[in-house]
Amino acid sequence: AVVKTKKKAGVPRLWMRFNRSGESELVELDKNAIIRIAAIPARDLRILGPIFSHSSNILAREKAMVVNLEFIKAIVTAEEVLVLDPLSHEVLTFVEQLRQQLPYKTQPKLHGHAEEQENEPLVSTGRQWLPVPESSDGLQAELPFEFQVLEIALEVVCTYLDSNVADLEKGAYPVLDALAINVSTKNLEHVRSLKSNLTRLLARVQKVRDEIEHLLDDNHDMAQLHLTRKWLQNLQSEVNLGAMASNAPATAALVPLHGSNRSGSLVTSSAMDDSDVEDLEMLLEAYFMQLDGTRNKILSVREYIDDTEDFVNIQLDSHRNELIQLQLTLTIASFAVAFETLIAGMFGMNIPCTLYKTHGVFWPFVGGITAASILLFFIVYGYARWKKLLGS
Amino acid sequence: AVVKTKKKAGVPRLWMRFNRSGESELVELDKNAIIRIAAIPARDLRILGPIFSHSSNILAREKAMVVNLEFIKAIVTAEEVLVLDPLSHEVLTFVEQLRQQLPYKTQPKLHGHAEEQENEPLVSTGRQWLPVPESSDGLQAELPFEFQVLEIALEVVCTYLDSNVADLEKGAYPVLDALAINVSTKNLEHVRSLKSNLTRLLARVQKVRDEIEHLLDDNHDMAQLHLTRKWLQNLQSEVNLGAMASNAPATAALVPLHGSNRSGSLVTSSAMDDSDVEDLEMLLEAYFMQLDGTRNKILSVREYIDDTEDFVNIQLDSHRNELIQLQLTLTIASFAVAFETLIAGMFGMNIPCTLYKTHGVFWPFVGGITAASILLFFIVYGYARWKKLLGS
Amino acid sequence: AVVKTKKKAGVPRLWMRFNRSGESELVELDKNAIIRIAAIPARDLRILGPIFSHSSNILAREKAMVVNLEFIKAIVTAEEVLVLDPLSHEVLTFVEQLRQQLPYKTQPKLHGHAEEQENEPLVSTGRQWLPVPESSDGLQAELPFEFQVLEIALEVVCTYLDSNVADLEKGAYPVLDALAINVSTKNLEHVRSLKSNLTRLLARVQKVRDEIEHLLDDNHDMAQLHLTRKWLQNLQSEVNLGAMASNAPATAALVPLHGSNRSGSLVTSSAMDDSDVEDLEMLLEAYFMQLDGTRNKILSVREYIDDTEDFVNIQLDSHRNELIQLQLTLTIASFAVAFETLIAGMFGMNIPCTLYKTHGVFWPFVGGITAASILLFFIVYGYARWKKLLGS
Amino acid sequence: AVVKTKKKAGVPRLWMRFNRSGESELVELDKNAIIRIAAIPARDLRILGPIFSHSSNILAREKAMVVNLEFIKAIVTAEEVLVLDPLSHEVLTFVEQLRQQLPYKTQPKLHGHAEEQENEPLVSTGRQWLPVPESSDGLQAELPFEFQVLEIALEVVCTYLDSNVADLEKGAYPVLDALAINVSTKNLEHVRSLKSNLTRLLARVQKVRDEIEHLLDDNHDMAQLHLTRKWLQNLQSEVNLGAMASNAPATAALVPLHGSNRSGSLVTSSAMDDSDVEDLEMLLEAYFMQLDGTRNKILSVREYIDDTEDFVNIQLDSHRNELIQLQLTLTIASFAVAFETLIAGMFGMNIPCTLYKTHGVFWPFVGGITAASILLFFIVYGYARWKKLLGS
Amino acid sequence: AVVKTKKKAGVPRLWMRFNRSGESELVELDKNAIIRIAAIPARDLRILGPIFSHSSNILAREKAMVVNLEFIKAIVTAEEVLVLDPLSHEVLTFVEQLRQQLPYKTQPKLHGHAEEQENEPLVSTGRQWLPVPESSDGLQAELPFEFQVLEIALEVVCTYLDSNVADLEKGAYPVLDALAINVSTKNLEHVRSLKSNLTRLLARVQKVRDEIEHLLDDNHDMAQLHLTRKWLQNLQSEVNLGAMASNAPATAALVPLHGSNRSGSLVTSSAMDDSDVEDLEMLLEAYFMQLDGTRNKILSVREYIDDTEDFVNIQLDSHRNELIQLQLTLTIASFAVAFETLIAGMFGMNIPCTLYKTHGVFWPFVGGITAASILLFFIVYGYARWKKLLGS
Repeated sequence: AVVKTKKKAGVPRLWMRFNRSGESELVELDKNAIIRIAAIPARDLRILGPIFSHSSNILAREKAMVVNLEFIKAIVTAEEVLVLDPLSHEVLTFVEQLRQQLPYKTQPKLHGHAEEQENEPLVSTGRQWLPVPESSDGLQAELPFEFQVLEIALEVVCTYLDSNVADLEKGAYPVLDALAINVSTKNLEHVRSLKSNLTRLLARVQKVRDEIEHLLDDNHDMAQLHLTRKWLQNLQSEVNLGAMASNAPATAALVPLHGSNRSGSLVTSSAMDDSDVEDLEMLLEAYFMQLDGTRNKILSVREYIDDTEDFVNIQLDSHRNELIQLQLTLTIASFAVAFETLIAGMFGMNIPCTLYKTHGVFWPFVGGITAASILLFFIVYGYARWKKLLGS
Repeated sequence: AVVKTKKKAGVPRLWMRFNRSGESELVELDKNAIIRIAAIPARDLRILGPIFSHSSNILAREKAMVVNLEFIKAIVTAEEVLVLDPLSHEVLTFVEQLRQQLPYKTQPKLHGHAEEQENEPLVSTGRQWLPVPESSDGLQAELPFEFQVLEIALEVVCTYLDSNVADLEKGAYPVLDALAINVSTKNLEHVRSLKSNLTRLLARVQKVRDEIEHLLDDNHDMAQLHLTRKWLQNLQSEVNLGAMASNAPATAALVPLHGSNRSGSLVTSSAMDDSDVEDLEMLLEAYFMQLDGTRNKILSVREYIDDTEDFVNIQLDSHRNELIQLQLTLTIASFAVAFETLIAGMFGMNIPCTLYKTHGVFWPFVGGITAASILLFFIVYGYARWKKLLGS
Repeated sequence: AVVKTKKKAGVPRLWMRFNRSGESELVELDKNAIIRIAAIPARDLRILGPIFSHSSNILAREKAMVVNLEFIKAIVTAEEVLVLDPLSHEVLTFVEQLRQQLPYKTQPKLHGHAEEQENEPLVSTGRQWLPVPESSDGLQAELPFEFQVLEIALEVVCTYLDSNVADLEKGAYPVLDALAINVSTKNLEHVRSLKSNLTRLLARVQKVRDEIEHLLDDNHDMAQLHLTRKWLQNLQSEVNLGAMASNAPATAALVPLHGSNRSGSLVTSSAMDDSDVEDLEMLLEAYFMQLDGTRNKILSVREYIDDTEDFVNIQLDSHRNELIQLQLTLTIASFAVAFETLIAGMFGMNIPCTLYKTHGVFWPFVGGITAASILLFFIVYGYARWKKLLGS
Repeated sequence: AVVKTKKKAGVPRLWMRFNRSGESELVELDKNAIIRIAAIPARDLRILGPIFSHSSNILAREKAMVVNLEFIKAIVTAEEVLVLDPLSHEVLTFVEQLRQQLPYKTQPKLHGHAEEQENEPLVSTGRQWLPVPESSDGLQAELPFEFQVLEIALEVVCTYLDSNVADLEKGAYPVLDALAINVSTKNLEHVRSLKSNLTRLLARVQKVRDEIEHLLDDNHDMAQLHLTRKWLQNLQSEVNLGAMASNAPATAALVPLHGSNRSGSLVTSSAMDDSDVEDLEMLLEAYFMQLDGTRNKILSVREYIDDTEDFVNIQLDSHRNELIQLQLTLTIASFAVAFETLIAGMFGMNIPCTLYKTHGVFWPFVGGITAASILLFFIVYGYARWKKLLGS
Repeated sequence: AVVKTKKKAGVPRLWMRFNRSGESELVELDKNAIIRIAAIPARDLRILGPIFSHSSNILAREKAMVVNLEFIKAIVTAEEVLVLDPLSHEVLTFVEQLRQQLPYKTQPKLHGHAEEQENEPLVSTGRQWLPVPESSDGLQAELPFEFQVLEIALEVVCTYLDSNVADLEKGAYPVLDALAINVSTKNLEHVRSLKSNLTRLLARVQKVRDEIEHLLDDNHDMAQLHLTRKWLQNLQSEVNLGAMASNAPATAALVPLHGSNRSGSLVTSSAMDDSDVEDLEMLLEAYFMQLDGTRNKILSVREYIDDTEDFVNIQLDSHRNELIQLQLTLTIASFAVAFETLIAGMFGMNIPCTLYKTHGVFWPFVGGITAASILLFFIVYGYARWKKLLGS
């Protein structure tokens, strides 16, 4: 069975591991190792694989969050984050940001709380990470580790998409205006490649946006993403179990304010729940708005493309009609000329005719047939104008 | 760390500050100051930035409402409103309205209640702003401060959008009718710029409308927007806490009507909740309807554009067919003429022919070939008519 | 302040006032009077104004229902209905219907109940309007006053829209079939005006339909519309309050069947709620279905227009190709003729040639070049057929 | 008033009446009779009228279900079904199915239960129709009468629509392939009538499908449709009332298993509710899937039509370009010929020229101008190819 | 009745039967046998029939799950799976996978638990399959039998659809690029067949995706699919009933941890419910994402087709305009040539003219009329350029 398992796990891949203090190391892990670390089913690892390379998903699992946002493929637990392919060009920005922001954001809080909570030895490791709602009248409630990572990832991806859209926009308007002026194959090719770029980019922005909207719509999933809280609750329930076993005083220490154990813990946990889904909701909402704005920009480019194509279509049709109108005018003139040529041709025949002997009629005759053919031209031309086919 | 924070906060920007009595002052505040005043995360300030310049959002935060409606970018708390860039052309209307309506709407109520509630010294500052449901049989329940500001903002924005749409409409119909009569490049250019104006305007109206609809769909968010109530509840719970500590009589003063403290406050707060979301709902509903009407106007212009384009397309195609039909008729006639010219040309050859010696056949011959070519014309023309290609 | 208020209220407008017995009077009321009568905020009156003239809304307010259905603009309270502009052409039908149906529907019930409820003097004015669920095994539960008015309004509007759609339909098919046969500018103009009529009518039907659907989706709003019930509940709660004050016997009279006061009233009110939203739901559902049918008719006309336009487009294109095919055939023939004309022309030159002296070659020569040009024609024609350009 | 009522009720129409045992009789009933039998408001009867002839609705009312599915217009109560126009061609199938299946499905169950429930005389008539959840481990829970009728109606309508779609499909593909090969007016007409058939059929299938989906989405409506259960509950509550009056033993007989009366009946009714909405849900789900499949078939035909039209459009355009290319080639050749004809014509002038005296230059001269005009042809033709206008 | 039933059941069909241990046998079963085994109504069997051959549905029934995913038609109960037409080409992969994976996945767990649960003889057969939430800190909670089968089915179908889409994609881009370069009937036919393949494939992927989304949206249906749990609960409730009858000690053994029987079982069952819908949700989510990705691929191909068609349409129109422009230029040149030919023709007339006697004017005259006709050409050509009809 060992051989088979190894085979399934495939070749190990390069990951970068960040812990809560922002310390990082490069590690090579195969599929099984990841499954063991993050406690996720093998099925979920597929979304980090090549099939989902252009897709975006955020999965909430028991002890981990699987993040696949564009080029960022990471697994976040309450204690560390694993980033896949950390050396590829685009992921480097994310790794840089993680390295810069992670220790800065979490350490101050860490020390501050750790000091004043020394008297709670049992859950101190967990408690210091606990987002305390009461302290939110400070500038900003500190986000738990996994949301900090998520925010950095969203920040990197949104900035990346936004700059891509800005490039697209900058290129789009000149190309479209060029097409509106002159419909050449070259300009058409430009617009065509512009359109497929736009479609691809729109699909990507839409995917990230939809994933965030989907999360925002589902409070249960958002609560699931709160790995730190779930981790702390597990710790606490174990402690409680222990406390129950050893009959009581330790529990009182845990929930020191309230008189009765049961009602107190209930109040605490439910209050926590609400406030923290609020936190994540505010975080996701902000990026949702940014992505929505990005998407609206793309949509307005697409609208502009559609308008330009409509314009070009009618323009080409209208131009063609004008061409044909001039051609028709020339056809009428040619017809008059051909008519006169026919008359001339007939009198060029060598079959004897009395006129051939009559002197002095040449110029009147030429004048006559010319006048006739000019008249013919104006009759036909006037008919066409009367029919609204020419003129105006 | 101080240096870094300063750098992040960026340059201070100009804000205008209105308090509840409508008194205003111009202040320069940087990002951090705003964050301190409104107690919102830095993230939320981005929606007032240039990225969101064409977007519309209303964010409900713990102690503030971040309003980004078209050109109006403001932060509203229960006590004051901060308006960004108050001197720019379009925002001036909003500032004017705030200056005119704020003291007018709130002051009468303020004095009236203040007098009869002198015997409740603890919460008097809050109570006098409290929208009292019982008094709603008067002309109109007084709105809390933040909703008054929101209503003025919506009023200004809706009026602005509506006048823009009216301008668009006024310009659109003549341009489209001109295009329907004559498809010239100039008219096409007009329609094209009309369409991109319309698309832009529609996106803006839609954005405001969607934001309001989104709020209307989410009772929780609407309740969140009720900053005054949340502020009062905080005050009250602090008072209650104080009352609990000092054991009792003060609490009775707060809720004087009911016998039991607990049940009484429950009834009050829940009744308040319902009635006030109702208030905001009615307020938003009215502007939602106005925006919906505005949007329908734009949509009907777009519909008219589409119909005109369809008309023009078929018109151009049909016109072209008529042009080609006339051209075909001329081609048939030309062919007959060319045929006769050929006959004449052949007898113009200098190669000896017996006819060249025969006198008196010229006119019959000319008549004959003319008759033949006229016959030819009618045969081909008749064929074309029989095939339904010409005529009708 | 008096001057200012008058100015805001604007000129008084003509209203027709119907009370529950169907008695009507013409009155002139300004904005403030209406606000006082219906107890609605000034904001809501705007939907009866010119901005919303092509919109449809039904607003549920505390003591009134604001009805804006197409041309019918009315304010309905539990006791009377105010109709705006009752003398305009279209509203007259509505006024007629109100006059005919209001006394008929409510009076019989009125007398019947009034007699058997004489022993309940306190709430008799209210009780007799109360839709009693138990009596619904009769032909039809009597609707409360406001729903009767709403039903008449919906009936009038639906009939009006339906007859408009019927007119549209009757006109549409001949116009479209005429276009399919002959694409003339006149027919195109007909279709274009048909399309803009259709779009306008669809928008109106859709608006009424959406408003009803919106109400049907929101039980809370439907319950809000039940003005009579809310009025009765107010009466009852006042009575209860009075009863409480005078300690008890009167209350028993109010709810005579049940043993305990509290549980009894609970049962009654909740049962009432359900059954009556049911009543309104059934009422709205029926008109929703009718409007949905009306809308489907318009949509099927639009579908027919689209199909006809597709048909006409392909038809025109196909026709053009046939025109060009005939033209091409003639071009080939002309080319052969031109070729022969060239040969003849060359031998018409006065430059000496040995053939000019040779007798008896004229006819063979003519036959030869004619055969050659006919061959040329068939070669080119055959090539075109082989290339699938001609024939078929 | 009697005269007026009669007038409103209109002429009596022919109905067929089936009772639970499948016995049928033809009756003539006017509107009022129906309203009396089914206890539905007059308003609901309109959906059986001509306005809704192409619509489909299923209405759940207090004591009846109004079924309007395509051609089937029926009113179903817990005890009988009334079918409108039972002699019209399409309804006959439905009547046939009712006659065959009704006694077959209900009788066996009837006898079986009737025997073993002889000891419950009070509700035996009702009880034997009661779908007993416990017995559902048998092959299939027996459906109540109204669902049996509904299933037969759905079966007949689905089969009818499916066979219509099959006919449409069979006809569509040959017609479209014929159009793809040859765009003639006849083929276009075929496709046009195909499209309007398809649109009509799609609207009808969609209507039935949407009605079922609407029901499936609304558990309350589905519960409302369970007429038999509501009828039984009415019976039971009357019995309970009676039992309460006669103080107790009879009630125990009704709910013999449970100790306490109140909790017992609660359990029973709630369990019943769930299980039976499940029954109806399963029934409707199956027909929803069938209609969804039918709809997908129509949509795929429409997709095929759209694809064919796109194909034909590009095909026609491409064909036209090829026609014009050949025409252009001929125009170039004609131009070369015209140029040579001009040269020849000039030397056909009778104005004296030295060449006219020079012998032996005729053939070199002809060869020269021919070469020149061939060169001219190739120059212009080469230019056109270089410009990518011709060739390839 | 026996004869009739047999007739309805139709001919027996070939099924393959897998039990929990992965042992398989081929059996021939008719409709009635299936109905008996799976306890499903006959109605549900239709979705495995030919009408639904291109549809996908997953039905949750009391004791079975009816799976119709593309070519896989199976009935899954808590104890076995029945696969229809197991020998057909595509189903073989599914059968292979079932044979390989079923024993592998379930057996280890089976033995492990069986040993440590020997002391619970009553429910051991069921308990060992019970997914125990506490043990989920191991690598992966073991899935119940029916979900394993469902996962294998989804895996096979997703892989199959994905490989189909990959084939489509591989073929699509060359075909479309070929069309963009050269619009020939052959290339158009390729694109047309590509489009109908794509439409068919999209409909199939969409159907499977929608079915999964539908399940994910409905927690009730997902709970219904948990056949093993429902089976265990039935067992347990029977045991409980038995325990109740034999008064108590056995029950204590079943729920050994908790003090009170009632509350304990409540906790257990509700905890189980949540956790297991979670399991199925995670399973379905993963395949939903894969199908969504597959669908996005198809949609992007369709987008590419649309873009290419737009490109080709404008390209053809633009090309045609260029053709007509060259033709127009030639028409102008031809007109100038015709004009000169006319002059020449006139002087070729045999009617006496003084010029015919004048020597030495031939070349100046020819030069003159040539210059005149060249001038004519440039005047008309310049006019066309001035009108923007030619050039650029």
